[in-house]
Amino acid sequence: MKLLIGNKCYSSWSLRAWLLMRATGIAFTEQLVLLDEPGFKDAIFAAAPGSGGTVPTLIDGEIAVWETLAICEYLHDTQPQAGIWPRDKAARAHARAISSEMHAGFTALRGACPMNLGKRFAAHGRGPGVARDVERLTGLWRQARERFGAGGPFLYGTFSAADAMYAPVVTRLDTYGIAVDPVSRDYMKAVLALPAYREWLAAALAEPWIVAQDEVDEPALVNLR
Amino acid sequence: MKLLIGNKCYSSWSLRAWLLMRATGIAFTEQLVLLDEPGFKDAIFAAAPGSGGTVPTLIDGEIAVWETLAICEYLHDTQPQAGIWPRDKAARAHARAISSEMHAGFTALRGACPMNLGKRFAAHGRGPGVARDVERLTGLWRQARERFGAGGPFLYGTFSAADAMYAPVVTRLDTYGIAVDPVSRDYMKAVLALPAYREWLAAALAEPWIVAQDEVDEPALVNLR
Repeated sequence: MKLLIGNKCYSSWSLRAWLLMRATGIAFTEQLVLLDEPGFKDAIFAAAPGSGGTVPTLIDGEIAVWETLAICEYLHDTQPQAGIWPRDKAARAHARAISSEMHAGFTALRGACPMNLGKRFAAHGRGPGVARDVERLTGLWRQARERFGAGGPFLYGTFSAADAMYAPVVTRLDTYGIAVDPVSRDYMKAVLALPAYREWLAAALAEPWIVAQDEVDEPALVNLR
Repeated sequence: MKLLIGNKCYSSWSLRAWLLMRATGIAFTEQLVLLDEPGFKDAIFAAAPGSGGTVPTLIDGEIAVWETLAICEYLHDTQPQAGIWPRDKAARAHARAISSEMHAGFTALRGACPMNLGKRFAAHGRGPGVARDVERLTGLWRQARERFGAGGPFLYGTFSAADAMYAPVVTRLDTYGIAVDPVSRDYMKAVLALPAYREWLAAALAEPWIVAQDEVDEPALVNLR
């Protein structure tokens, strides 16, 4: 399988699919499509005619899967050993609900705090919409941890697609210095310590368009550089 | 199982889940939550604590599933006889991709043409964003029909969750008088003729807040009244 992804420093959707595959041990090759280049969609359409022309897009032989949630479900169907979704029925239903909520929601946070793995931002208020988003999403994390998280540090114990879906939110809360409750903070640490995430981050920071541009000196949870 | 839904005339997301369950023969009861009433979210949270407070929400014993795509996957898991997604692997991957694209996309069409099953709108230009949305979504329909639609009149032949996801787009294109290609028009006719859809429509038109307010006399594909 081949995964088309965008710039690792900036492409939050690419991070989701890549992290899911890497952290669950699915073998794949990657193809970087530089999002700032003219004609970047052409490269995607060349590999996946009729797709959304977006990253991530997964190519598996004749099958092209675009849209991150569809990629999660495709992997769940075709890689049963990977543990894409929680095994427990109630946990799986919850994980899919909060992943779907992530897919179309939290637009204030996403708009105000675009993912940028190469920069530490000064902590300041980001407006009531962002505050509401953070309250809701950390509430969902606490729900998952409390009800289904006994088996490990991730939302449903072991790493699943729900963690991949929220990974770019974890990095935002971290690099933008947004305060969260202790349960959420512990959860963030688990995601940021994942070897697969560290591998992605190292590659992101090695991208040539990264420049040192931190607004603050305080280290984030993950030491970016 | 119980499905919490909003006003049938207006709640496009409720239509998706309800239509999927009814058209695939899944037994359920419904609970109407009037979206214009103060405190309508309280009724949802009472049945589904911690959920999004949105419709549709599916209640199955102790399990509450909110978010329409998560409901589709829950039904796919628990009602294997219903044929929620296409059986063919490539068709299923395509169906999930276009359903996910629907979930977070086509915002221009959704904003300019809110679902209102009780009204026929005068046909006029709705702006370039709507035109782009219609071009894209009818292109997806043609892709599905051409590649996977041999076994019947729906996107993947027999009715599936993808048809449910696009049903409120079918009604919009119809009631707003938006012209489409012949393949898409035939597909729309199949959806609008579904007994399950006719049942929903009859209930929508019987809701007491419906008033005759058509902008045009031309009948839509479905004869509303």
